[in-house]
Amino acid sequence: MIDLYTWTTPNGRKISIALEELGLPYTVHAVNIGKNEQFEPAFLRLNPYGKIPAIVDNETGRTLVESGAILLYLADKTGRLGGSDRWVTLEWLMIQMSAVGPILGQAHQFLHFNPGKAPFAEERFRKATERIYKLLDARLSEQAFLAGDYSIVDIATWPWISRYEWQEMDLRAYPNLLRWYLAIADRPAVQRGYDVPTKVNEIPRP
Amino acid sequence: MIDLYTWTTPNGRKISIALEELGLPYTVHAVNIGKNEQFEPAFLRLNPYGKIPAIVDNETGRTLVESGAILLYLADKTGRLGGSDRWVTLEWLMIQMSAVGPILGQAHQFLHFNPGKAPFAEERFRKATERIYKLLDARLSEQAFLAGDYSIVDIATWPWISRYEWQEMDLRAYPNLLRWYLAIADRPAVQRGYDVPTKVNEIPRP
Repeated sequence: MIDLYTWTTPNGRKISIALEELGLPYTVHAVNIGKNEQFEPAFLRLNPYGKIPAIVDNETGRTLVESGAILLYLADKTGRLGGSDRWVTLEWLMIQMSAVGPILGQAHQFLHFNPGKAPFAEERFRKATERIYKLLDARLSEQAFLAGDYSIVDIATWPWISRYEWQEMDLRAYPNLLRWYLAIADRPAVQRGYDVPTKVNEIPRP
Repeated sequence: MIDLYTWTTPNGRKISIALEELGLPYTVHAVNIGKNEQFEPAFLRLNPYGKIPAIVDNETGRTLVESGAILLYLADKTGRLGGSDRWVTLEWLMIQMSAVGPILGQAHQFLHFNPGKAPFAEERFRKATERIYKLLDARLSEQAFLAGDYSIVDIATWPWISRYEWQEMDLRAYPNLLRWYLAIADRPAVQRGYDVPTKVNEIPRP
């Protein structure tokens, strides 16, 4: 059994979707970041950085943080969803961790949560977001999924793209990305994982 | 022989330092991002995202991008610098890739290159930078290096901390981080790797 500490954010949803895809049994512990529960001592013992998600694998006793590391761990544990080539998986997982998440996350902050407070920053992150959408669309014009077969890379990237509205992006302008997005949105495991630890809205569909 | 495409940035220096530490022979190809050479067709064929560093391992024919993936590849190829525990290495490498680099990189943009253009963003990234320095300092109060033994995680993180002046941070306020920083700065391989592809300044020392 795996204990999952999470919230309804893109990084949190990566892990609940992966656990649902892999059929691994898990217990959900809600960490409401709207109430700053990630900074309470009980959670800081799991992750001193105060970020969800975190897991405890009770089979091995291991506590693990950072969504990218957790996804690699779950793929390694099950021998599934690791992609067609280990290094291609790591390249695209690193692009997700170092660019897709950090840049789209700043787009959320400046465009969605704090519009008008820093127009220079809004412009900067709008352009960087467009550059990422173009990169993903070009990649998905060549193959069905980001790292060969459907893998943890798609699971890591999809929850960020599912907030295209917050990023003020029109997914219909990126037809390959849109095709990929809708194919993954149709997966029952993705739909179940999206609602962990609680249902807040429907998966958006352009 | 490895072909290294790089420039004198923190992400570029990660790889030249790792290659120097591992004693792997390599040929340097300078990609001057000040002249937008990362967007020239020859480089975009290596990395469609237009980011340095990239390597080509002529022993295997593999092209690899994303500094975090390249570091894991070099550690795997040599069986060295992988840290004491695979998953702890991945956790802290993901923290470097998803937070240390992206946040300190934005601090460079808003505090160093564009001061005064977005005070709201400056404040945001100043606070996030302080949070990262505190996290690293706390970690290094418990152990000598970030993932047990000196490893690719230290090599990934150190070049970002070496720009503490651009981040307007006083390293002396973080004594454990300072001790770690200076210990790594003293390593001959780090000093050699720092000057690839060209020497631009001395390693700063508080």
